Amino acid sequence: MSHSFYPPRRILMGPGPSDVSPRVLGALARPTIGHLDPQFIVLMDEIKQLLQYAFQTDNALTLPVSAPGSAGMEACFANLLEPGDKAIVCQNGVFGGRMKENVERCGATAIMVEDAWGDTVSLEKVEQAIARNSDARLLAFVHAETSTGAFSDAAAICKLATSHGLLSIVDTVTSLGGIELRVDEWGADAVYSGTQKCLSCVPGISPLTFSERAVERIRSRNSRVQSWFLDMQLVMAYWGENSKRAYHHTAPVNALYALHESLLMLREEGLESAWQRHRLHHTALVAGLEAMGLGLVVAPEWRLPQLNSVTVPAGIDEAELRGKLLRDFNLEIGAGLGALAGKVWRIGLMGCAANRQNVLLCLTALEQSLAALGAVIKPGVALAAASAVYQQ
Amino acid sequence: MSHSFYPPRRILMGPGPSDVSPRVLGALARPTIGHLDPQFIVLMDEIKQLLQYAFQTDNALTLPVSAPGSAGMEACFANLLEPGDKAIVCQNGVFGGRMKENVERCGATAIMVEDAWGDTVSLEKVEQAIARNSDARLLAFVHAETSTGAFSDAAAICKLATSHGLLSIVDTVTSLGGIELRVDEWGADAVYSGTQKCLSCVPGISPLTFSERAVERIRSRNSRVQSWFLDMQLVMAYWGENSKRAYHHTAPVNALYALHESLLMLREEGLESAWQRHRLHHTALVAGLEAMGLGLVVAPEWRLPQLNSVTVPAGIDEAELRGKLLRDFNLEIGAGLGALAGKVWRIGLMGCAANRQNVLLCLTALEQSLAALGAVIKPGVALAAASAVYQQ
Repeated sequence: MSHSFYPPRRILMGPGPSDVSPRVLGALARPTIGHLDPQFIVLMDEIKQLLQYAFQTDNALTLPVSAPGSAGMEACFANLLEPGDKAIVCQNGVFGGRMKENVERCGATAIMVEDAWGDTVSLEKVEQAIARNSDARLLAFVHAETSTGAFSDAAAICKLATSHGLLSIVDTVTSLGGIELRVDEWGADAVYSGTQKCLSCVPGISPLTFSERAVERIRSRNSRVQSWFLDMQLVMAYWGENSKRAYHHTAPVNALYALHESLLMLREEGLESAWQRHRLHHTALVAGLEAMGLGLVVAPEWRLPQLNSVTVPAGIDEAELRGKLLRDFNLEIGAGLGALAGKVWRIGLMGCAANRQNVLLCLTALEQSLAALGAVIKPGVALAAASAVYQQ
Repeated sequence: MSHSFYPPRRILMGPGPSDVSPRVLGALARPTIGHLDPQFIVLMDEIKQLLQYAFQTDNALTLPVSAPGSAGMEACFANLLEPGDKAIVCQNGVFGGRMKENVERCGATAIMVEDAWGDTVSLEKVEQAIARNSDARLLAFVHAETSTGAFSDAAAICKLATSHGLLSIVDTVTSLGGIELRVDEWGADAVYSGTQKCLSCVPGISPLTFSERAVERIRSRNSRVQSWFLDMQLVMAYWGENSKRAYHHTAPVNALYALHESLLMLREEGLESAWQRHRLHHTALVAGLEAMGLGLVVAPEWRLPQLNSVTVPAGIDEAELRGKLLRDFNLEIGAGLGALAGKVWRIGLMGCAANRQNVLLCLTALEQSLAALGAVIKPGVALAAASAVYQQ
């Protein structure tokens, strides 16, 4: 064990982390400075502005939580719920279930709106749940379900919430930077994400934004937030106005260098261009997969470009295939989770991993490896089908 | 704002983060791999073993929490306390107060044992508190108070706890790697630390270890842990036996590369050697400071080598001095916190920042800058006093 760790050079096309660009890794490794250094305060302000752009919001409370996306999720629930509250939670995959866990651990009650794994969240069911639970305080849902590859109509769901006086909590871990997301226009109230998906930054940080309505809810709490670390009133005092900067915890300085660089790259490319790029490579990948004879789990209109759930052909051991891709091609794709475990692969096209080389490599590697394992697929047509998309 | 962030090259002699070695920054920037990659699992096992060495423990539940030290603290309290419990908390600085906050947010009651800021925790008072509170479930204290620079007799306090059937929670954020710490020998039950102090790693991760007694307490809880993210039963399923590795959250892959490298460096140097090195440079620094006429807050027998609280001379604006050190020498030292705000500077000698060059630079910079601000100090003697220590 007494030697340095040199990781293999993988191509990350799973559900995240995604490939991190050398530019971001370079920023990550710059010399550490103090978390109260005047230069670091400048960086914090820039990160806040860049996050406002990425989320398309003017929310003053926009910052990176110093922990992974699941802590960002917890920050939303722990700050906005109090014991005895009722929350409507939409579940159509793993992460809706985690939201339920969070609601219950806050001493609140979760009213579940359930859809099949792979389906989009049903607006009708949401409307019915709201009608039946006039005492609910908030509505939570996942914009882009990483476990299935389906997205939901966040604009419409947020509108339902707002029009009935409910706060909305929106999981955008996999959507931020990959598909359209407009926090202010949609009226979303508490929105959290992760760095390791379509931002192509290293994992470990959770960007978050709270509307003025959400902040008002926090300020009018009767009880203290059960988490000291995630108490937004305390975190705000550190990330807030320049003059205060009250010490709360030591910020993960180098991780924030990396986040800054990845957000800068997103801004340079432009949000709309990034969304289009994800869409283009998804279209090419799907054309290749379908030409090969593979099927996707999610209906075309609700497919996430950045996360493609592919049905495992009959008779194939899904783990064996993934092991083969990793060994022979250094290519990582993801396994199914929860209800889809063993039944699907999840192929990510996230952030800087959403590019033409990756699509073509993935199709080639899949075709060769599936054939080697004896799967019945159509050989020799996938690359042409994908390439045709790029030539349109 | 549209440009990359290039931090200034500081010398970090504050209360943390400390200077990070180029070797650790190099590890940090290696290509990201998946958090379920077989190679990453190998890395996780090595980190666990290296942490066991650093903590001097065989505890199976030894792992890095994916968030800063304050989350590590919260993990200890949230997992070991249930609503209605009673905990004895020792306070002799900022972090004992934060422990109280944590106890209360768990719905438990904190019985405070208070000592003056800068004093060590009084064993007599602890003994009295235990005698008066036979229904208390645990005893929490800070081994090395970063806010004052005093350490406490952790071996004796843990022994008091154990002999009265109490679990102990020990904050070793600033002690790990800097002064003697022997988790198993002392019988400490739940111990958390940080990466950005004497490990000289980047901030953002909290090493943690739980004894079998602590794990037993978690297993016998009546209520669920209020934090999903910090629920050790879930985290253990990811960090536990190879065969399981149940997905909990996406590990901060690159930060763990860095932690691995910093722990490897600690092991190469040897724990005892690292403790001696901190002691040597502290002795030299203090000799220089005292020769100059500056006084330390903490009594000699309880001084932390890695964190030196220096009394601000009358008539000197402490913030002005720190600003001058930063501007003229790129040297960061820390301000006072809480009860000591405005009254002290905190000079860190942590991890790879504990070296001869830093001691001599700090004394030179302090002498020149204090003189420039009109402080009455003895000029021209500090360097000789410090150098004499090195020549012994």
